[in-house]
Amino acid sequence: MSTLNKQYRLAARPVGLPKDSDWEFTSTEIPTPGEGEVLVKVHYASLDPAMRGWMNDGKSYIAPVGIGEVMRAGTVGEVVASNNPGFAVGDYVSGMLGIQQYGLSNGTDLTKVDPNLSPLENYLGGIGMPGLTAYFGLLEVGAMQDGETVLVSGAAGAVGSIVGQITKIKGGKAIGIAGGADKCKYVVDELGFDACVDYKSDSFIDDLNAALGGKGVDVYFDNVGGEILDIALARLNRHARVVICGAISQYNNTTPLRGPQNYLNLLVQHARMEGFVVFDYIKQYGEGVKALATWHGEGKLKFRNHVETGIENFPATLLKLFSGENFGKLVLTIKED
Amino acid sequence: MSTLNKQYRLAARPVGLPKDSDWEFTSTEIPTPGEGEVLVKVHYASLDPAMRGWMNDGKSYIAPVGIGEVMRAGTVGEVVASNNPGFAVGDYVSGMLGIQQYGLSNGTDLTKVDPNLSPLENYLGGIGMPGLTAYFGLLEVGAMQDGETVLVSGAAGAVGSIVGQITKIKGGKAIGIAGGADKCKYVVDELGFDACVDYKSDSFIDDLNAALGGKGVDVYFDNVGGEILDIALARLNRHARVVICGAISQYNNTTPLRGPQNYLNLLVQHARMEGFVVFDYIKQYGEGVKALATWHGEGKLKFRNHVETGIENFPATLLKLFSGENFGKLVLTIKED
Repeated sequence: MSTLNKQYRLAARPVGLPKDSDWEFTSTEIPTPGEGEVLVKVHYASLDPAMRGWMNDGKSYIAPVGIGEVMRAGTVGEVVASNNPGFAVGDYVSGMLGIQQYGLSNGTDLTKVDPNLSPLENYLGGIGMPGLTAYFGLLEVGAMQDGETVLVSGAAGAVGSIVGQITKIKGGKAIGIAGGADKCKYVVDELGFDACVDYKSDSFIDDLNAALGGKGVDVYFDNVGGEILDIALARLNRHARVVICGAISQYNNTTPLRGPQNYLNLLVQHARMEGFVVFDYIKQYGEGVKALATWHGEGKLKFRNHVETGIENFPATLLKLFSGENFGKLVLTIKED
Repeated sequence: MSTLNKQYRLAARPVGLPKDSDWEFTSTEIPTPGEGEVLVKVHYASLDPAMRGWMNDGKSYIAPVGIGEVMRAGTVGEVVASNNPGFAVGDYVSGMLGIQQYGLSNGTDLTKVDPNLSPLENYLGGIGMPGLTAYFGLLEVGAMQDGETVLVSGAAGAVGSIVGQITKIKGGKAIGIAGGADKCKYVVDELGFDACVDYKSDSFIDDLNAALGGKGVDVYFDNVGGEILDIALARLNRHARVVICGAISQYNNTTPLRGPQNYLNLLVQHARMEGFVVFDYIKQYGEGVKALATWHGEGKLKFRNHVETGIENFPATLLKLFSGENFGKLVLTIKED
């Protein structure tokens, strides 16, 4: 085996969409674990909209990735060397090891996963961060109740697809918004949403109103921001909850971000808009993983991964998130053999 | 006494600031109360930012004022004729009788008030709707806790002035935003806020940061919207609450409303933004009035009214709200003798 560790490092802070020149593709020696450390061979990396935010300078819920540092990413892999009594060679783990073939950890940020229970890549998706984001966002932040109507944007995406399925499991009405007829068909036929409307269609507004049947929205779970957020704000029921999970339509803006013009409908409807990141619920991850894995095992919760291959394809693959080309949770296979 | 009842009626839906031609000044016979009805001679009318919203067509928390109808307004006055056993001639009452000298009511929307306990005009201000708006907005919607930092815009206004004073009563730090040095001096010296910053000053941002002492905001109580809302959103503490009470900077816009561009800080800080109107708390008004009147009686809560005189001055006086010319709760004396 090669003794080199290929890595993607952040070379410059992007303006708008990340360009090739914003990255540096490097090779260094595979590190040797020190006292208490674990060396993990990365099998899969998770590509997520949040990564775009980590590339910007400035205060956020997590420090930005430094220039010259390996790009931060969620990963799953196999322990190949360990000086930590908590981890043995051959263990499978998930953790934030970044876009590289081998990562070192002191073990505190690693979670053991079982590839016999579910394919390894699902620990980056449906029973990983996106699944937990959907779970805590809908049930804790959104406080969704039986019988309520939930509208979710990015409905075919890693988070949105699970939001709608949990809505159905919990007795609600799930209406998705997605880009394109294929995605909408998948959301309704495969995932069991009550309806899905295509925001790229000329009849989007009429279709949305028809799906709502003249009624309003109790929970709007927003992954996209921009105009769709405003359209949802105009359709809130009294005491509605707007869950701000992301704003992928705005992440690559070079002009000022579009604020929600209809925010005063929060006043009219005594509604609230609340943001969160999944890390806020770290103490409850066990509960969330258990629920997601159970529903998945019972066939009530379906996951779809969009897997691309090769660390060298990282920059181009990441861009698929922003063009909406991915269909399902976007995962990059890093392991070469 | 004249048998005519002067009234201001809505003649047209304003575009931007209300113009003279949007009003019709009429005189009709003073009505005679029918079975169960009460005739009230209006002493004072309350002029409030919310009135601008009632002049627009479209769905809101309350039906718009119809073209040709007497302009809706909160009032206090004296019962001068009654066919309702609940009210006697000589009773003082508050109710939504509108911009007119005499109003009829079936009594269900009237509340008896005691001018010996507090001057009549205070029932339109500190112990009326603005006081209740501050009370429920800060303590229920904002869920303000002992030791927290509360930032409030419109700090010299009818609602904002009370928000900061309740903050102090409840053990918090109160920082106001107001327009002009005189208002800021009043807010600190008379009302006891910890600090007040002048948004019209060139050093506004620096002054605000200095008042916050490098710390963030736990509750932002927003009466103004626009750029100041964005400035506050950028300074939220974790789990902060943004209370949307109004957006006076935006009510006369003829261009699209400015949405809060910094709303994604809700995500970063796991914060929430929630709107309300005081009518949402109608069942708790008694509790609120009692608390406000008690604090006022103990000298802990001060009110300032800006009283103008003459029903014929209604259109011009209303505009003072939007230019910020009023200093204290804006009240119009309607009673002529």
